[in-house]
Amino acid sequence: MVITRELVFPTSGHSEVVKITDKVAELLAESALKRGMVLLFIPGNTAIVTTLEFEPGLVADVKNAWEKLVPSHGDYEHNLRWGDGNGYAHVRSSFGGPSLVVPFEDGKLILGTWQDLVLIDFDNRPRDRRIIVQIMGE
Amino acid sequence: MVITRELVFPTSGHSEVVKITDKVAELLAESALKRGMVLLFIPGNTAIVTTLEFEPGLVADVKNAWEKLVPSHGDYEHNLRWGDGNGYAHVRSSFGGPSLVVPFEDGKLILGTWQDLVLIDFDNRPRDRRIIVQIMGE
Amino acid sequence: MVITRELVFPTSGHSEVVKITDKVAELLAESALKRGMVLLFIPGNTAIVTTLEFEPGLVADVKNAWEKLVPSHGDYEHNLRWGDGNGYAHVRSSFGGPSLVVPFEDGKLILGTWQDLVLIDFDNRPRDRRIIVQIMGE
Repeated sequence: MVITRELVFPTSGHSEVVKITDKVAELLAESALKRGMVLLFIPGNTAIVTTLEFEPGLVADVKNAWEKLVPSHGDYEHNLRWGDGNGYAHVRSSFGGPSLVVPFEDGKLILGTWQDLVLIDFDNRPRDRRIIVQIMGE
Repeated sequence: MVITRELVFPTSGHSEVVKITDKVAELLAESALKRGMVLLFIPGNTAIVTTLEFEPGLVADVKNAWEKLVPSHGDYEHNLRWGDGNGYAHVRSSFGGPSLVVPFEDGKLILGTWQDLVLIDFDNRPRDRRIIVQIMGE
Repeated sequence: MVITRELVFPTSGHSEVVKITDKVAELLAESALKRGMVLLFIPGNTAIVTTLEFEPGLVADVKNAWEKLVPSHGDYEHNLRWGDGNGYAHVRSSFGGPSLVVPFEDGKLILGTWQDLVLIDFDNRPRDRRIIVQIMGE
């Protein structure tokens, strides 16, 4: 059985890290499926989904690391052509990837004790960020 | 139902970015499945699949960013041992990952308006690059 | 059909790269499923799963590249707050991602000739590292 849903999270952009575990778990509970996979997918080019121990220190560390690896104020061809200044966000998103697959069993996500599902919105403006949540299983 | 197919794209290597959305969508249409997941997987060690707004500025930006993060002419143990000079391509591929999972509904890939599926071939020579496309759903 | 299993690999941490292909292939053979997807997922925040040509040169190259990108002895807020010194491992894990999906057909993983499934344990101490192996198919 396959169930496709959508979640929307308002974000302020600028690499805001948003914890989405609870909302995903709610959709899973509603599905009444017992075992299978949850696919999280961002239909967009400037955000990613991943997992993280959601504590303020690591939220800052992850932002700093992305800033060092793909600087927000570097020189990007995208910015020269389109003038929207978010070339860095596109590049980061293509590195991190738009999808994440998480197993569930007994109707519950299998995650580590301190492991959360997070959305990182790299764009340079506030957005209502959509995430597709697709649940496949039995 | 599970359908496993293969696509082959000739590439020139050297981080060529190839748009593969249309070919994947064709296979999905042929499958006649309505909802589920498409798994894209590269059976190889020197290329990745990801998503990107496919415009020349970002194609250049992504190449530049990879070159900065994992330089093609750095010192790699792999090159000393095997002499094929593509150690950087193996390292980039292990970072980016060989697989991508994309949801579909009503027989259509769920993607953002400007979001394309792309193959990035990091190898240092032209190749016929194989991608496994596995469609699972109902 | 969905089958959820768990593998445990003792690791020494410090970015040890562990080849896990054979153990995953064994679970797949036991499942008796013919075609579908294998999801590998790490229920933890300081390790990743990816693919790599498993030879000593590349194992060293991948460790060196991670060290350069996200240094183990950098300044991390996580370390200041928690004192466990593994902030770099959390950051690396959130970049690389905890999951990998691999297709199988005729009861066999579809991998390139020299492509192995690997676990990279970034933590700064030995661990028994758990990996969830979920097999979905027919």
